[in-house]
Amino acid sequence: MTAVGSFEELDRAMTPASLAIAGVGQTGMGRLFLSRVVQYGFKGPVYPLHPAGGEALGLKVYPNVNDVPGPVDYVVSCVSAPRVPQLIVDCATKGVRAVCVFTAGYSETGTAEGRQLEEDLVRLARATGVRVIGPNCMGVFCPKAGLSVASDAPREQGRVGLICQSGGNAMYLIRAAGDRGIRFSKAVSYGNACDLDETELLEYFTQDGETDMVAAYVEGVKDGRRFLGAVKRLAAEKPFVVLKGGHTAAGTGAAASHTGALAGSDSVWDSLLEQIGAIRVHTLDEMVDMMVTFQFMPVPGGRRLVVFGVGGGATVLTTDDCSALGFTFPPLPADVRQELHEAVGGDAGNILGNPVDIPPMVGTNEGYQRLLRRMLGWDGVDLLLYQLPFRGIMLKVPLAHMIFGSQMANVVRVAGEGIKPVAVVIHYLATGEGWREASTYVRQAWESGLPAYYSAASAARAIDRLLRYHERMRTGPPSPDG
Amino acid sequence: MTAVGSFEELDRAMTPASLAIAGVGQTGMGRLFLSRVVQYGFKGPVYPLHPAGGEALGLKVYPNVNDVPGPVDYVVSCVSAPRVPQLIVDCATKGVRAVCVFTAGYSETGTAEGRQLEEDLVRLARATGVRVIGPNCMGVFCPKAGLSVASDAPREQGRVGLICQSGGNAMYLIRAAGDRGIRFSKAVSYGNACDLDETELLEYFTQDGETDMVAAYVEGVKDGRRFLGAVKRLAAEKPFVVLKGGHTAAGTGAAASHTGALAGSDSVWDSLLEQIGAIRVHTLDEMVDMMVTFQFMPVPGGRRLVVFGVGGGATVLTTDDCSALGFTFPPLPADVRQELHEAVGGDAGNILGNPVDIPPMVGTNEGYQRLLRRMLGWDGVDLLLYQLPFRGIMLKVPLAHMIFGSQMANVVRVAGEGIKPVAVVIHYLATGEGWREASTYVRQAWESGLPAYYSAASAARAIDRLLRYHERMRTGPPSPDG
Repeated sequence: MTAVGSFEELDRAMTPASLAIAGVGQTGMGRLFLSRVVQYGFKGPVYPLHPAGGEALGLKVYPNVNDVPGPVDYVVSCVSAPRVPQLIVDCATKGVRAVCVFTAGYSETGTAEGRQLEEDLVRLARATGVRVIGPNCMGVFCPKAGLSVASDAPREQGRVGLICQSGGNAMYLIRAAGDRGIRFSKAVSYGNACDLDETELLEYFTQDGETDMVAAYVEGVKDGRRFLGAVKRLAAEKPFVVLKGGHTAAGTGAAASHTGALAGSDSVWDSLLEQIGAIRVHTLDEMVDMMVTFQFMPVPGGRRLVVFGVGGGATVLTTDDCSALGFTFPPLPADVRQELHEAVGGDAGNILGNPVDIPPMVGTNEGYQRLLRRMLGWDGVDLLLYQLPFRGIMLKVPLAHMIFGSQMANVVRVAGEGIKPVAVVIHYLATGEGWREASTYVRQAWESGLPAYYSAASAARAIDRLLRYHERMRTGPPSPDG
Repeated sequence: MTAVGSFEELDRAMTPASLAIAGVGQTGMGRLFLSRVVQYGFKGPVYPLHPAGGEALGLKVYPNVNDVPGPVDYVVSCVSAPRVPQLIVDCATKGVRAVCVFTAGYSETGTAEGRQLEEDLVRLARATGVRVIGPNCMGVFCPKAGLSVASDAPREQGRVGLICQSGGNAMYLIRAAGDRGIRFSKAVSYGNACDLDETELLEYFTQDGETDMVAAYVEGVKDGRRFLGAVKRLAAEKPFVVLKGGHTAAGTGAAASHTGALAGSDSVWDSLLEQIGAIRVHTLDEMVDMMVTFQFMPVPGGRRLVVFGVGGGATVLTTDDCSALGFTFPPLPADVRQELHEAVGGDAGNILGNPVDIPPMVGTNEGYQRLLRRMLGWDGVDLLLYQLPFRGIMLKVPLAHMIFGSQMANVVRVAGEGIKPVAVVIHYLATGEGWREASTYVRQAWESGLPAYYSAASAARAIDRLLRYHERMRTGPPSPDG
């Protein structure tokens, strides 16, 4: 039976005003943890702990958390597993309410010893009232508090909440989503979930007024019924995207060995999660696509799509990818086509019906913008996908960059007028030496509030999920009590 | 009825020793084409053509191809469509055997006028014996001849042949595959295929001694029976990978408008192509994955896989991805596990059975290499997948780069001993500012003869296709006459 904390109790751990790190020696993980947290810029006092005392990175090292002069909201354990119980007891004495046990060596080892250590840890947490995050995890990422174990994570606070059983996957998601404009309210890597578990975390994010959307990477669930109840309540309030790690038999074994998780059968997960309004994805990058879509994509009125951009072959493949997911391509009316012909010039080799394949260089910026307005303003269309196959033209990077830069500026400008939703696709994997230039378009897109994707297939899949989500919500959101 | 050229005739067009470009004015596509070709470094003489004569990029401009002093193997038409017939006639007089009609404005426009122009062009080609590549295409890419319309394309000759109905997709493939170590014998963007078509090109590559593997991006096929016969003969000799553009109804429409192609029904393609030994892929990046796999991956003896690398969560997802495609994860024997424990240290948080999740920093290089040799040498395994989730750890780019650099060096060294096949996965999309560093691992992999992939899912899919290909070939390759 898991303890259930109040929202306020958890919120103090999620946005701590003071922090201690146990196990800060001259080298090792405690030291590394400290340097990352300091570099990222924790906003309150940071207290390194080590029996030897002394100094670390110019900070006084305290032998024990009870030697710390001020209050401590959050403690990170980088001591070895056998030393963790005394740390918990000390924390209880100090009045610390939450300890992130970065320390590994528990049930994930698959040994009797590891399981026993974890059982003891849970018993101690219950007895002392100290909440344990982990063990075997990186704990809380909270830009508002200045708390991050990755010093290069984005510093701005956002409105996406993340729970992630794997610390590495959390780092990947924070960086990959960060590159596409996603900022987090809080993200929690929660490892073996021996005390604070996935269900309680979802309940926290359901209540959290700083979070508009929640994503979860979950390898196993301790109590399926409680978890599904929490998902149901969350999904009724906020978009909830979930990736199940260990969904194959072999993956289940790996998950057990990674975080000691008991993963459920795949088909059960699939049907239950969809039924109660969760959006299930299958890769970390699909998860980022959904964050981007919920954050930056206004809900299109339907699936009538105009594909617009450079490259005939890219256009054909994009049409295939979008069509396979139910998007339709209404032929542009004669007057819009006429305008297109005038803007593009009589020169052919371009697909001007819909999809629209234009040459890299097109007339004036004014003409280009007028065209976009005409297409978006036509009442036969619900959304526009602009694609930029940066390395799919004969030009070298600098010239391509100049040309596409002015195209992007036009797209961003007209999209900002809010006539209809616009998605941007930067075909990414062939960017090669043009990667830096291509990534400026991704940044330009999200800084202007537009969703940017790396392929048409991923854009289509994400927008399809957005549409299906809103269709479900319209026909009646899942009742939190049903 | 299409003319069928001899191998020698086509080979002269594919590896021209001399080149003329028609329509080289002071600006425009002819000028651009010329500058690209000169920058890339065409190995024979280049003759710009324009009625006004003069000079272009320091080269004498000839009013007519018949004014050129020496022989001309290959002519690129950048003149407008109405001027193309006279160019063809002039070429016939000159003895030019192949003209790449870059010019667009033909059947892809969907207009009666465009169709008429294309019919006239075919009739003229037949009457004069001049072979036409295109229209509406970029033509031949041949590193051996120094012929490329993209001056930044790789300069080395390789042994992969490519036919690509779309010029933009050809550029994308040449660059994306180039980043992963693929070099081409010849690649042909063949556009509307009014004369030289997909079938004849496949027959050329079947015979070409400089080509070991062939990839094709095809939007439509002029004569299905001839095409399937050519595929059958090709697939009996060399691996053949095909991507069908316009495989949905909407995509078919786009393809018609892009290259005037009449695309066939998807299900027919699928079953016929698989039956006769072709490997069908669904994206350009999957196509590159197959090139990489055929070029760099020795055929594993089976599907018994060891996954080895950093990151518990990455390992769980990789296991899911590989397991879903039929790969199995035999538990490492006790003695190998013992060696792993010794190398990694007693520290847990790592999955040491199989998949193997190791910490970023692992003991000595000698110990690391010994471990790899033990795993590869164990007779219960067929291949090893090493994964590097570069941005999935808490470290910043420079430190991660230092650590992973030494891991990669160990992997490359042991893989080079050829004990068992090794694949490298560089999780790519979250590389963000570490992109440049991550790409050095990709280069290091292929320069050492290892296949490098951007995700575990794409690696598993490609290696699965390789295995199925060889299973089919073992049970009897398709008879070229059957």
